Amino acid sequence: MTGRFLTLEGIEGAGKTTQMETLVAALEAAGHRVCATREPGGTGLGERLRGLLLDPDLPQMIPEAELLLMFAARAQHLAEVIRPALDAGQWVVSDRFTDASFAYQGGGRGLGDTRVAAVEDWVQGDLRPDLVILLDIDPTTGLERAVQRGRRDRIEREAMDFFERARAAYRRRANAEPQRYLMVDASADAATVGQRMLDGLRSRGLLEAST
Amino acid sequence: MTGRFLTLEGIEGAGKTTQMETLVAALEAAGHRVCATREPGGTGLGERLRGLLLDPDLPQMIPEAELLLMFAARAQHLAEVIRPALDAGQWVVSDRFTDASFAYQGGGRGLGDTRVAAVEDWVQGDLRPDLVILLDIDPTTGLERAVQRGRRDRIEREAMDFFERARAAYRRRANAEPQRYLMVDASADAATVGQRMLDGLRSRGLLEAST
Repeated sequence: MTGRFLTLEGIEGAGKTTQMETLVAALEAAGHRVCATREPGGTGLGERLRGLLLDPDLPQMIPEAELLLMFAARAQHLAEVIRPALDAGQWVVSDRFTDASFAYQGGGRGLGDTRVAAVEDWVQGDLRPDLVILLDIDPTTGLERAVQRGRRDRIEREAMDFFERARAAYRRRANAEPQRYLMVDASADAATVGQRMLDGLRSRGLLEAST
Repeated sequence: MTGRFLTLEGIEGAGKTTQMETLVAALEAAGHRVCATREPGGTGLGERLRGLLLDPDLPQMIPEAELLLMFAARAQHLAEVIRPALDAGQWVVSDRFTDASFAYQGGGRGLGDTRVAAVEDWVQGDLRPDLVILLDIDPTTGLERAVQRGRRDRIEREAMDFFERARAAYRRRANAEPQRYLMVDASADAATVGQRMLDGLRSRGLLEAST
């Protein structure tokens, strides 16, 4: 039996790193074998491209190039990590995946859904996450958290309206497909957000002990 | 008036570097302002990706990822270098462009024309070179020349049938659109090949003194 494919999404400061740990621990406690990974990254090529994408010395990259780099890393990630893990029956949890491209390049940089969707189809065929967990947060709150962590890479230095557009794109996708998206209000403290996320998984039957 | 867009193509050892110099000198002698560039590369991002693509330590890249990296570099190259130069009335000569993707990823790696053409349309819209100069050579001869130069990067270590498929794809495209391709037999010495190339340009009215 193939595994399930879950992704964790949200803008800067939504708390993805912390909730990723909560999620993986809960799935393992339910008896699933879990493959935890992240984008951009997750492979040797992906980590090299991640360094390039977040390099503050390359601020002039055009949106089309940025999107194609993301999907180049994603194609490698799918072939090397995600598909083999799913085929082996593992549950794959990725810190970001294609919804981030719709949010950041499609919404934030203004490429639009149609152009992103064309590359999504080209790279993924009909593979889509079984569930996308969206940690939804107001960009002002999220960026305050990110600044407190001292992180200031290329993407985080974007203007506030960039993140407003990214959040709007995330929410639009979640609202359009509620059966495949779990939107969690991420403005509370980490423990509360984690509880909301796990309640959402439980109500979808994803935290039952595996047999 | 916008300039013309010429590209120089061919497999390893076809003599592109030498003929590039001949071509640029002849166009400048005809009074054109020439912008000489190359792929992958031609921009800060492109040179970084070129290093990645030719890195012998990353031999396991899947064809889809390789193609998307090539087109990411190309999108940046078009925006930063090629379109501005054409708009300024310069003649752009690129050492390799999209025909190389059809040859290497489409033919050599077996992705096929249709998948490459989809990304070509996505990135380029309707921009195509005005003339593609194909330096056509038998891979055995070409690779002997490349080995004598001491070059052995990742792509040059491919098996001979890879280069046979790349050459076949190049020739197929040239034969399908003879008005937009100039195929030159590149098996002779450099001076003879250069003469054949310039004769071909002259017969198309591309070496007349500009007014």
